[in-house]
Amino acid sequence: MIQKLIDAIREKNAPVVVGLDPNLAFVPEHLQKAAADKISGAEICAGQKYTEEKAALYTASEAIWQFNKEIVDAVCDIVPAVKPQIAMYEQFGLPGLETYDRTVRYCRNKGLIIIGDVKRGDIGSTSESYARAHIGRTPVGGLEVPVFDVDFATVNPYLGTDGVKPFVDVCNTYDKGIFVLVKTSNPSSGEFQDVLTAGGVPMYELVAQKVREWGSVSMDGRYSNVGAVVGATWPEQGEKLRKLMPETFILAPGYGAQGASAADLAAFFDEEGSGAIVNSSRGIIAAWQKEPYRQYGPEGFAQAARAAALDMIEDLRQAIANR
Amino acid sequence: MIQKLIDAIREKNAPVVVGLDPNLAFVPEHLQKAAADKISGAEICAGQKYTEEKAALYTASEAIWQFNKEIVDAVCDIVPAVKPQIAMYEQFGLPGLETYDRTVRYCRNKGLIIIGDVKRGDIGSTSESYARAHIGRTPVGGLEVPVFDVDFATVNPYLGTDGVKPFVDVCNTYDKGIFVLVKTSNPSSGEFQDVLTAGGVPMYELVAQKVREWGSVSMDGRYSNVGAVVGATWPEQGEKLRKLMPETFILAPGYGAQGASAADLAAFFDEEGSGAIVNSSRGIIAAWQKEPYRQYGPEGFAQAARAAALDMIEDLRQAIANR
Repeated sequence: MIQKLIDAIREKNAPVVVGLDPNLAFVPEHLQKAAADKISGAEICAGQKYTEEKAALYTASEAIWQFNKEIVDAVCDIVPAVKPQIAMYEQFGLPGLETYDRTVRYCRNKGLIIIGDVKRGDIGSTSESYARAHIGRTPVGGLEVPVFDVDFATVNPYLGTDGVKPFVDVCNTYDKGIFVLVKTSNPSSGEFQDVLTAGGVPMYELVAQKVREWGSVSMDGRYSNVGAVVGATWPEQGEKLRKLMPETFILAPGYGAQGASAADLAAFFDEEGSGAIVNSSRGIIAAWQKEPYRQYGPEGFAQAARAAALDMIEDLRQAIANR
Repeated sequence: MIQKLIDAIREKNAPVVVGLDPNLAFVPEHLQKAAADKISGAEICAGQKYTEEKAALYTASEAIWQFNKEIVDAVCDIVPAVKPQIAMYEQFGLPGLETYDRTVRYCRNKGLIIIGDVKRGDIGSTSESYARAHIGRTPVGGLEVPVFDVDFATVNPYLGTDGVKPFVDVCNTYDKGIFVLVKTSNPSSGEFQDVLTAGGVPMYELVAQKVREWGSVSMDGRYSNVGAVVGATWPEQGEKLRKLMPETFILAPGYGAQGASAADLAAFFDEEGSGAIVNSSRGIIAAWQKEPYRQYGPEGFAQAARAAALDMIEDLRQAIANR
């Protein structure tokens, strides 16, 4: 699967993934109103009506679905991948997860590669269930049923090999990939990840070593299907990790709204300008609310997202070229 | 919220939580058949039928729902709490999560305290969404809507304070609780959690210190609403952590099927015999498949679960009394 991502990045010359993390505050008023009108008139079945609370969750989920569709339509020819953040859907319960599911299928039909940002991880048998849910298939009724069925999932390593191996097995069975959290983009990521161990290296380096080991059984071309999340907000660590994990593809969140620049990211890429993909969520999907994209207005939110994505792509191309 | 759990444990004299992790292999044939009959004849709405794959997911979810109901009916007067493991539901997609949701509401109506074993954790704004989804409420349409609405959620600490604080804030707003992973029950938990840091203590002790710190702003009686997961499979670490975290209530998975005995757990409790609750999942809900509970047969699966729960309760009572 990682080779498919690499090929798609090359084809579009854009190492950029659009984070579909649609906070309701990013969704223009006209979409929220249309969703409210639609749901307030809707029936579940045969005259049954939603409760007020259910209707509110369905309205939000419908608004986000329409929002996602326009964003995806506007960027699908210029970026290789999207990264829906499942928490933003989970907060709206089952209706929200229905929108997550629909969004994933819509993006697949548009030819996009989908990174499900789920950050799951548990003990062995439980991680196996999560792996089935997100990148594998669930054996049931004599079938093998794909469930949320994204191409890559993000995975939390805190439980060790037990928690990650079921995902790697699924990567091998169904040609999928994962990105394991190594050094996350958030301000307090260092509290545990940067702790110096008695062996003289920070914890995130031990995690990086394990990621290489886990990934060695799932190579796909030059890189492994087992990638790593390394925050764009940590350029020094990114440069170090690029060298420590030469076969590990990096998913780098944190560009834009979280503060990282293209220059910070140059060292995340390999000598061919491959080896990493950079995520921006708010910076793209909420671009219409900020300069220099405010001119597009709420009705032009998707075109604002496209303009912001194009600017980000150009910014990264230059940073890679100028290394 | 932690005081409610402590009171419920005291009232039933049972520091036991039943893990509702219903692998389909635990669900007796007659329930699976009844579910298949029900779903194969079902209509979504107005004559619309499920696809074969959707029907398979709905059948599994229906079988698990009926299974859970009987288990809950059989144990709700003897245990204070249940712990549904969301991964086991997520693997069946939206129908599975509907069963999770129903199970939670059913347990609440039975007066049980519900620990949602979700092991979520992300960067700040994303953890806020997860916290809303599982223990808080989502602001939408002028309402504050409870979503999955369990009493406690399990939380992964790898991202540091940013990832945990949104959950703690929700604990304070809605009188809820969390259990943060400190030392997990699985065989490879030591790979990162036991790593000796340059300061001379293992990583899990650093996490334990943070858990105390996070919990200090959410005290509820003698204990904090911010608890810790410490695997019953690690008795020495459990004893040490009990002393290091005197205000931290412990959720201890790993009894029974994962290999821990009641004797291993004695030191997890405080001098009053409080301070911890022990989980068993398979050992209770799949008891009917094993000696000495096989006599109950598949039709008596719920009574087998009750018998296994009673034996576990007695086993722990004696271990606490004999310290």
